Amino acid sequence: MTVSPHALDVAVALTPVGEHQFTGHTHPAYGNMVGPFGGTIAATLLNGVLSHPERLGDPVSLTVHYAAPITDGAFEVHARPMRTNRSTQHWLVELRQSGGVAAFATSLTALRRDTWSATDAVFPQVTPADQLPRTTSLFRTAWPMAYDMRFADGEQPLGSVERDDALTRVWIRDEPPRPLDFLSLSAICDAFFPRIFVRRPRIVPAGTVTLTIYFHADAALLSAQGSAHVLGCARGLRYSQGFHDQTAEVWSPRGELLAVGHQVVYFKE
Amino acid sequence: MTVSPHALDVAVALTPVGEHQFTGHTHPAYGNMVGPFGGTIAATLLNGVLSHPERLGDPVSLTVHYAAPITDGAFEVHARPMRTNRSTQHWLVELRQSGGVAAFATSLTALRRDTWSATDAVFPQVTPADQLPRTTSLFRTAWPMAYDMRFADGEQPLGSVERDDALTRVWIRDEPPRPLDFLSLSAICDAFFPRIFVRRPRIVPAGTVTLTIYFHADAALLSAQGSAHVLGCARGLRYSQGFHDQTAEVWSPRGELLAVGHQVVYFKE
Repeated sequence: MTVSPHALDVAVALTPVGEHQFTGHTHPAYGNMVGPFGGTIAATLLNGVLSHPERLGDPVSLTVHYAAPITDGAFEVHARPMRTNRSTQHWLVELRQSGGVAAFATSLTALRRDTWSATDAVFPQVTPADQLPRTTSLFRTAWPMAYDMRFADGEQPLGSVERDDALTRVWIRDEPPRPLDFLSLSAICDAFFPRIFVRRPRIVPAGTVTLTIYFHADAALLSAQGSAHVLGCARGLRYSQGFHDQTAEVWSPRGELLAVGHQVVYFKE
Repeated sequence: MTVSPHALDVAVALTPVGEHQFTGHTHPAYGNMVGPFGGTIAATLLNGVLSHPERLGDPVSLTVHYAAPITDGAFEVHARPMRTNRSTQHWLVELRQSGGVAAFATSLTALRRDTWSATDAVFPQVTPADQLPRTTSLFRTAWPMAYDMRFADGEQPLGSVERDDALTRVWIRDEPPRPLDFLSLSAICDAFFPRIFVRRPRIVPAGTVTLTIYFHADAALLSAQGSAHVLGCARGLRYSQGFHDQTAEVWSPRGELLAVGHQVVYFKE
């Protein structure tokens, strides 16, 4: 029996070609309006860290700069530890195409140990995923079809209505299902559409420019999720002079805060 | 008449010593438990961008990695544009001491143009700064004395009580007063104590490991603030396995969201 790898694993796969260097290739299942979905680029950059022989511990943070349009096709990834301490490590990862830096990321990894723990953010009470239909009102690009999204609230055709806020609560998992890990969680953190499309009754050119993810889950907690939906709660903060920010909490169905993503989105007009 | 420069300007001052290279020096007014206050380090790294002859536009984001302890004394700053587009630019800035990278930052700068604007975050109604006393219950290090902080709520000796959340609302300005700009705003974004000290009735070793700031104000809006207090609203999200995250909104007295800071804090036990 032959088992085909999941498209996400193909999209983020890196082949070592030298010290600190890898090659990769975009995947049509994660195509966006122009080039690839930013979530798979974030996951690919993180994979540069996770695939590196010198890596220490699990990801705690990831900051991605989408510096230039990425063309569908091959790219190089260059990952190197900027500083290695006893239990933490700081990384710089670059994605290069045609000799230029098209995207880059910094990351903190750490050996995590049990400590006092608490959650101040509040897990929202929403309709469970299995009682909601999979959305069909998505943007006309490939990548949203690589997810099963079920909106607990905030579902609407993008750019269709004027709202007072941009809050969306959506259950999401890979489609076809795939066990959750740091790579898929990173991609999911960029799967919440620009809030400007939720907030305003029109579509304007827009896209993520920089994304920061804080990982609260360790590998064991992610693994325990299997391929269940996670709950994303996204909202905007301020929109002005061509940029807005937005924040998304990603929760397990049992109310564990797995990750928080913050991003800056460019928009026109 | 001789006017002495403000200590913050001395702390973040950079002297060009080559292409992309500067030297700087820590300042005792911003001393912390070990080495300098992280806020002045963030401002210093941003100053590497702002002082660079190739810089395009104003800061939109800044992500700082505090990679290793910084020693009081001299350091080198190396700043270079990773990618320059028509209206945006992506930066990498390193702070080096003793041949190693002690801190580094990435930044997005952009030429900002008027667009549709809105604020979804809610400006909190609190007692104005001029009706509150300057706090005296601060940590015993130098840097908090370089600020005038007036707590609208959440004031308490650090590590003194058990609370259900870590919300603090505090008016803050440089002491002595200094007109607000991107440098001082960056430092203020790191002036909200680790939430673990607000949340728990004990002091444990803790410190910021990575900080991301999104700037919503342009230079004109910052300049219009003069040296008035700004309102910082800080809260924690999740604490586990040695790390927690926290978010701080920074508002003008008139309810303009000037910046939002997100950070990961290391803590022990």
